[in-house]
Amino acid sequence: MSSTDDSDRIFKALADGRRRAMLDLLKDHPRTTGEIATAFPALHRTTVMQHLGVLEAADLIIVERKGRERINHLNPLPIHDIHTRWIGEYAALSVQNLSVFKAELEGRPPR
Amino acid sequence: MSSTDDSDRIFKALADGRRRAMLDLLKDHPRTTGEIATAFPALHRTTVMQHLGVLEAADLIIVERKGRERINHLNPLPIHDIHTRWIGEYAALSVQNLSVFKAELEGRPPR
Repeated sequence: MSSTDDSDRIFKALADGRRRAMLDLLKDHPRTTGEIATAFPALHRTTVMQHLGVLEAADLIIVERKGRERINHLNPLPIHDIHTRWIGEYAALSVQNLSVFKAELEGRPPR
Repeated sequence: MSSTDDSDRIFKALADGRRRAMLDLLKDHPRTTGEIATAFPALHRTTVMQHLGVLEAADLIIVERKGRERINHLNPLPIHDIHTRWIGEYAALSVQNLSVFKAELEGRPPR
């Protein structure tokens, strides 16, 4: 994280469940703002655009402008930085093993 | 993440800069509540305990009770789950490479 302000923007953006759901939608592939609005029929298009604006300001999505279309890409780098901040490269494998072990104990597929 | 409620607790806990700073402090090794309070002289001890309560409820710290002492451990699993949710195991290496490349471009040490 380059500063407290950046961190604040990132975690405040992630503190809203609808914005997290929008990132979930973008995990597999980029989507236009129209496609995202269609996936959230309960939200007004203006509200969807506001949420995307918060995600863009936090650098959690990168918006590609192609003519009149806005194509929203998930930016994995701030997510990567969260992991590095509290786990770090060296402990990553141990934590992954721990996660698999916990999933086995709980009888669910590992994540 | 096992549910939206868990995610909500985790991201709302991380949305406060003082709580993130407490997790930073616990990254290297566990600390007693007294040690954490000493590291945050601007905060009243009751406030520190409230923040630790929020982190414990979100499962971001695990509290070991030893007699009258409370020893606070960082729990890396929810942090690991954030990474898995939006990056996943398969893309992890590419994102790490991208992060190193970005650091090189910006002339700072990789993270």
